[in-house]
Amino acid sequence: MLGIRIGVQNLRAIGWSPALHQKCWASAAAAFKPYNSKEPVGPSVKTAIPGPKSLALLKELNAIQATQSVQFFVDYEASQGNYIVDADGNVLLDIFTQIASAPLGYNHPRIIQAVTNPANLSHFVNRPALGNLPPLDWPKRLQSALLSIAPKGLKNVQTMACGACAVEHAMKAVFMAYRRKQRGGAPLSAEEMESSVINQEPGCPPLSILSFSNSFHGRTAGALACSHAKWNHKLDFPTFDWPIAEFPQVKYPLEDNKEYNRKQENRSIQDVRSKIEEYNRKGKPVAGLIIEPIQGEGGDNQASAEFFRDLQQVCKENGIYFMADEVQSGGGATGQWWHCDSWNLPSPPDIVTFSKKTLTGGFYCTEELLQKEAYRIFNTWMGDPSKIILLEEMIKVINENDLLTNVTNVGRYLVKEMTSLQKRYADQISDPRGHGIYLAVDGKDPGHRDKIVKGLQVRGIHAGGNGVKTLRMRPAMIFQTHHADIFLNALEDSLRENA
Amino acid sequence: MLGIRIGVQNLRAIGWSPALHQKCWASAAAAFKPYNSKEPVGPSVKTAIPGPKSLALLKELNAIQATQSVQFFVDYEASQGNYIVDADGNVLLDIFTQIASAPLGYNHPRIIQAVTNPANLSHFVNRPALGNLPPLDWPKRLQSALLSIAPKGLKNVQTMACGACAVEHAMKAVFMAYRRKQRGGAPLSAEEMESSVINQEPGCPPLSILSFSNSFHGRTAGALACSHAKWNHKLDFPTFDWPIAEFPQVKYPLEDNKEYNRKQENRSIQDVRSKIEEYNRKGKPVAGLIIEPIQGEGGDNQASAEFFRDLQQVCKENGIYFMADEVQSGGGATGQWWHCDSWNLPSPPDIVTFSKKTLTGGFYCTEELLQKEAYRIFNTWMGDPSKIILLEEMIKVINENDLLTNVTNVGRYLVKEMTSLQKRYADQISDPRGHGIYLAVDGKDPGHRDKIVKGLQVRGIHAGGNGVKTLRMRPAMIFQTHHADIFLNALEDSLRENA
Repeated sequence: MLGIRIGVQNLRAIGWSPALHQKCWASAAAAFKPYNSKEPVGPSVKTAIPGPKSLALLKELNAIQATQSVQFFVDYEASQGNYIVDADGNVLLDIFTQIASAPLGYNHPRIIQAVTNPANLSHFVNRPALGNLPPLDWPKRLQSALLSIAPKGLKNVQTMACGACAVEHAMKAVFMAYRRKQRGGAPLSAEEMESSVINQEPGCPPLSILSFSNSFHGRTAGALACSHAKWNHKLDFPTFDWPIAEFPQVKYPLEDNKEYNRKQENRSIQDVRSKIEEYNRKGKPVAGLIIEPIQGEGGDNQASAEFFRDLQQVCKENGIYFMADEVQSGGGATGQWWHCDSWNLPSPPDIVTFSKKTLTGGFYCTEELLQKEAYRIFNTWMGDPSKIILLEEMIKVINENDLLTNVTNVGRYLVKEMTSLQKRYADQISDPRGHGIYLAVDGKDPGHRDKIVKGLQVRGIHAGGNGVKTLRMRPAMIFQTHHADIFLNALEDSLRENA
Repeated sequence: MLGIRIGVQNLRAIGWSPALHQKCWASAAAAFKPYNSKEPVGPSVKTAIPGPKSLALLKELNAIQATQSVQFFVDYEASQGNYIVDADGNVLLDIFTQIASAPLGYNHPRIIQAVTNPANLSHFVNRPALGNLPPLDWPKRLQSALLSIAPKGLKNVQTMACGACAVEHAMKAVFMAYRRKQRGGAPLSAEEMESSVINQEPGCPPLSILSFSNSFHGRTAGALACSHAKWNHKLDFPTFDWPIAEFPQVKYPLEDNKEYNRKQENRSIQDVRSKIEEYNRKGKPVAGLIIEPIQGEGGDNQASAEFFRDLQQVCKENGIYFMADEVQSGGGATGQWWHCDSWNLPSPPDIVTFSKKTLTGGFYCTEELLQKEAYRIFNTWMGDPSKIILLEEMIKVINENDLLTNVTNVGRYLVKEMTSLQKRYADQISDPRGHGIYLAVDGKDPGHRDKIVKGLQVRGIHAGGNGVKTLRMRPAMIFQTHHADIFLNALEDSLRENA
């Protein structure tokens, strides 16, 4: 596939043009087999983005709701595979996939089959209150979808509608288990029950969840209390006084900076220990610790497997539940179903939350974390079986095509190529990193990163940012080196323009 | 339709049997036209509930997740209209409809059409990040679905995945607007932004939301801090110290107890005023007041329109935003799209939240409540266009069949008939009440209410409870007096058995 990249670079030298570019991809595509055979041969940008049609729609939408974060309107019917088509007919290679939530890209034929299969129809027409009245095939569907990909050692799973709800209910499972241990088998008291209803102790105890600097776990009050990535998520909202430990500030690549990073990670572990002590002392004992395997919103910050093993050890020593929030890193993104499986933990995390790529929110947990009384972890819908139908089919497609291996290989290729690009543009980009399709590279500063994102967009690549100055790449699991080359060429082209 | 009831009572006198009962409904059904022509002629109970097949599935599910609240497994494919069919082939008249969330009952042909319409396919296959990349038809769909039924005076709407998320983000809109007013146009300070990220003041101010005793607004931390219906929702979870005012304890029927109720409502208003003062004084100023038009989980507790007008007035006097939580009461349940429209408010509530019957969560709001900075009210999906497709079709069906009038009429009929039943069984049931299909009647105590629910179930009626001793009725909008008669007969039969 590298040949294709060089080919384009040569083309550029002899007088590159967008039209030639298109032709080039068309001929390159002849030798290339995408996972979705209907996808376009390459990007094609015809107008400014947002174009006039998107702008007209934006005006309509703006009369209905706040639209500051809308980028452009999408023709989802026309979008295919790795390519998103906007209202103005611009065809963009999508390396952000609906904030990392479209694992098979757009209109995958098998997902279409799953939706149009008459045997699945009633799941799209009737939405059950899953906690009361599950459908006949619910145990079987949970088995063949979510449990078939469960993190090592976890056999229980609870669905929820979205990522924030997954995290909120995971926290509640943790608080209940923590209090159960404290009660040591004593029955619930009338005082506890009555005081809980009016938000008072002992029913509502001042327990806390420890989280990390630059973390993101969701935007409802409990999840948000554990999120520390950006002010616009948090400003003006009352919150909990819960402990925040420093996420290790490592150097990349991890394997070349082991000694330095170990020190940083040990500092972080020390900080965790001291925060646990501090909050226990001030009467807000830590019941759970929540952490992302790779920090998403915070800027693709990594730590070593050893760090996560140490963290779990600290949790065990302190009777704290260890929660891996895999809403962004899970569902195959890093080349395995769950990144926590790469940590070689002696026992699984107590809870692993998911959403995005799994198409439904929810959490896996140990048996200890299951509710012991009815209606404690509950709401009207508790998820949506129609999403499990899609997930089940998606997992089949991923397994049949060995997309986890594809993800691993394309990720390695991208990191390698970005590393060589970084050598040529060391003044502009740094720290290419990641696993599978959970990838990032840093710009110089927020403005420069935004310029790269825009530079990619005019060249037909739809990307996103995160952290302070990071370019966040979250392509679909059907992203191949062919697509990677298109991205890399556009990136190099943008960097050359900025130089 | 009353004739049918008397017919069955006569039948009983001459030797009623379940088989005769079925035949009777079959002949009565000959003269009756249901809104879903495929629905069964009447209930039919063949086994204990849960039956052996449900119990076998329960065992399977119990190996996967906590199942204490599962009632039975449902054959959603076989369920039709007002009738839910369980795993064992029992056919139950459903007056609880998935916790009030299936407005057209099961497998409505028009909803099936909406799902199978190829023009809608891409919305079921591709789920967008709505805040970034809305589909082409999003403004149009919002107009023809949610805005076509908007509460009087509200022109803005924001979707969210579920009811709890709707309430959480509504609260955030309130906190932002409140702080904007306080800032009086001053720009956001670096101190505010930086402190917010680490959960500290001034960025995260100790603002509060005032809620009411016996309320229910959802199960994520912010919404749960405003919920005070039951201990099992709350126990063991840390929460906010936010003000809780007494919901008026009125007597029913409202129109016969005006003077007494006015006193109760005035006491509640006084309590609201004093709680506002108390929390302002203790440095936790009240930014919003949230209330259900009829308390759902808390036991179908009502108050007069005058009370809600007074409440809004108190809010205005104190610069507090007035939030009507219509997650359970909205979407047509009470015979109008929104119960707050019956209050004749001088101006609309600042926020009206919805979910359940609207098939998607979200909130309507005034322009003042819209976010002013990007990414403040945001998450990955922000709702689901596939649900708006269903909602749009559902609204058409409701309008074409004038189901709001149907709901109003069948509700009046049920309250009238339950009132006459209550006179005959005054030692067992009290306070039949409600609007439209948002109906309730009280048993003697929790155990007696549960006995009624079970008595209904063995007679082929699927009902639910709420509050302490209330039978909660939430039939579909296609519920007719014919179905009401089946329910009323089963209810009377159960009460006679208990006598």
